[in-house]
Amino acid sequence: MAIFGLIEYKDASPEVRAVYDDIMATRKSDWINNFWKALAHDPATLKRTWESIKQIMAPGALDPLTKEMIYVAVSVSNQCDYCIASHTASAKNKGMSKEMFEEMMAVVGMANESNRLAAGYRVEIDEKFKTW
Amino acid sequence: MAIFGLIEYKDASPEVRAVYDDIMATRKSDWINNFWKALAHDPATLKRTWESIKQIMAPGALDPLTKEMIYVAVSVSNQCDYCIASHTASAKNKGMSKEMFEEMMAVVGMANESNRLAAGYRVEIDEKFKTW
Amino acid sequence: MAIFGLIEYKDASPEVRAVYDDIMATRKSDWINNFWKALAHDPATLKRTWESIKQIMAPGALDPLTKEMIYVAVSVSNQCDYCIASHTASAKNKGMSKEMFEEMMAVVGMANESNRLAAGYRVEIDEKFKTW
Amino acid sequence: MAIFGLIEYKDASPEVRAVYDDIMATRKSDWINNFWKALAHDPATLKRTWESIKQIMAPGALDPLTKEMIYVAVSVSNQCDYCIASHTASAKNKGMSKEMFEEMMAVVGMANESNRLAAGYRVEIDEKFKTW
Amino acid sequence: MAIFGLIEYKDASPEVRAVYDDIMATRKSDWINNFWKALAHDPATLKRTWESIKQIMAPGALDPLTKEMIYVAVSVSNQCDYCIASHTASAKNKGMSKEMFEEMMAVVGMANESNRLAAGYRVEIDEKFKTW
Amino acid sequence: MAIFGLIEYKDASPEVRAVYDDIMATRKSDWINNFWKALAHDPATLKRTWESIKQIMAPGALDPLTKEMIYVAVSVSNQCDYCIASHTASAKNKGMSKEMFEEMMAVVGMANESNRLAAGYRVEIDEKFKTW
Repeated sequence: MAIFGLIEYKDASPEVRAVYDDIMATRKSDWINNFWKALAHDPATLKRTWESIKQIMAPGALDPLTKEMIYVAVSVSNQCDYCIASHTASAKNKGMSKEMFEEMMAVVGMANESNRLAAGYRVEIDEKFKTW
Repeated sequence: MAIFGLIEYKDASPEVRAVYDDIMATRKSDWINNFWKALAHDPATLKRTWESIKQIMAPGALDPLTKEMIYVAVSVSNQCDYCIASHTASAKNKGMSKEMFEEMMAVVGMANESNRLAAGYRVEIDEKFKTW
Repeated sequence: MAIFGLIEYKDASPEVRAVYDDIMATRKSDWINNFWKALAHDPATLKRTWESIKQIMAPGALDPLTKEMIYVAVSVSNQCDYCIASHTASAKNKGMSKEMFEEMMAVVGMANESNRLAAGYRVEIDEKFKTW
Repeated sequence: MAIFGLIEYKDASPEVRAVYDDIMATRKSDWINNFWKALAHDPATLKRTWESIKQIMAPGALDPLTKEMIYVAVSVSNQCDYCIASHTASAKNKGMSKEMFEEMMAVVGMANESNRLAAGYRVEIDEKFKTW
Repeated sequence: MAIFGLIEYKDASPEVRAVYDDIMATRKSDWINNFWKALAHDPATLKRTWESIKQIMAPGALDPLTKEMIYVAVSVSNQCDYCIASHTASAKNKGMSKEMFEEMMAVVGMANESNRLAAGYRVEIDEKFKTW
Repeated sequence: MAIFGLIEYKDASPEVRAVYDDIMATRKSDWINNFWKALAHDPATLKRTWESIKQIMAPGALDPLTKEMIYVAVSVSNQCDYCIASHTASAKNKGMSKEMFEEMMAVVGMANESNRLAAGYRVEIDEKFKTW
């Protein structure tokens, strides 16, 4: 169970409700997931985290689905169970198919493997990789 | 410097050359980067790793650029300097713009942040996230 | 369940009991948490680990509460569920308020974010940061 | 070298200069470290990251030095060379002595050790640790 | 529960059954563990992963038990609960005693500790360690 | 460069010299590597770390070479450059061949890959893996 419990909408302060309202409006959903309800005990962190995520995950040079799959990939690499579950669900909502999930997972696995091969064999960076 | 040094094409065994040839043919390039030259001391690992990466990074439900950005994202999350440099270069070759890199980095940073917030606040997984 | 089970005081060897006694005396408590009971299957590791922790966590240039919060911060960063739970409880016992926990968590999250930004952007170390 | 190079004040856009000015004013310093100059290629991330760090690192329930040492502890645990160097320097500026650094390091080392002991022995969370 | 559920032998495609059959024949066992049943939703990844593991874990310059303990050590370091459990069981089947497990764990703990001491104290690599 | 510099034998306090002497006697060597010289600024940590490593790495149910390879495997997984270099050298001194290093690396790579597959596919632990 979340360390301080979950704050439901009906029990939330106006400051927290304003964030919840913006989450639901942005997502066109009537539902708030546990991450935000657990974070609501610290309204400053709740607000800052939500506003950062809202800005970062908005469409830009990358589309929202690609961003969400990158989010899942990092969460898998870090073995964060909650984040794997919540961002896999988000990515699915944004159009990730089972096949896309499977291919993403294969890349995450291989990247974790080759990262260690590069470290253990102490491969020096090629000159042409040093600049953009 | 790579622990056993780098094996150049002219010094490579036929077994290693066959992998080098396939890397260059697949990439339509006349160049081999240091990772493979360092790994070539163990031909079995060289061959298996290349064949796995070739299969995993081929176009499928995800396009090669998306896969390459996921590879960069994991490498950044793991702080693998060589892999960050080499896969950033690969992603750029496949069409990643400066803006796409920047947005990818913003997602990687935020995912690493929220992964720890979820862990520290011990957020339980929402029922609706438990199944696909 | 712990891999070899938990060794309770009444079932413990004199060697293990001596460590348990010192843990309780040091903590002014009549209770041993599961970590030690699981480790007690290897009395050498039990004794060495306890004596190291006792030495490291004692008051010094840093007070015990600051040390305990650093312990929580690392455990959160590593996503170790047991350690997050046990060291959060210890920090609370030593005076960590809910607000202190929340601020510590905000720092841990941000440090994990900026660590990856520094890695991905390949920021070189400023000259003036190179020496103490 | 930073992937896109470093943006110096004289070459910065007004948007970037505004962040640089706020960093220097907040820190009562006439100097900007490389992290910000590398991030300045993405003004939105520069601004968001600075404003988050400014908010998070301000005095609150925890004093700025304790926060800075937690930042160092996480950076050491993640093995981020740049962040270790820059936040060690910041902590020193805020009053961290050599002895405080050494004790912080001892805690970070031990936390990383016991995190793995808890995982490998599969220690279950004590009932009394489950709630705040 | 595994994200797409587990595919049992009786429900598996011929392609998946061929891998299951090879797993059981190689292990001289009539049983498949959940990892493979979860991965079977992506037959290409199932086949590639199994063939890689089969090749890597075969006797060579290192015996299978040493390889399996290295596998456990990495899994503990990464805090992967499933992998800790499954590879501890495999290592036990290959002859790992309780004492061997305990000594392996002590090394894993200490390596994680000293890795951070080296990073935080920024120890430069000794000249004589730079080459094989 | 190490943050506080390296303390050479001739400049060391009697307390530090005693540890250096024991390191050299234990290793039957007349040489101290940088890790200890950097740590010598904190004699308590120097002594505790050395005594722990001496105890942990001594022959027991596992031979010293196996322990040293486990140490390398964890250091590679954590991407600790100093530790990879120093413990690879130690393992070589204790008899690790080039082939043994290569096989160890292949296991480390694969363990890092399958750890993420298990996490991302959310594989539940098999009943028979739950107990020793």
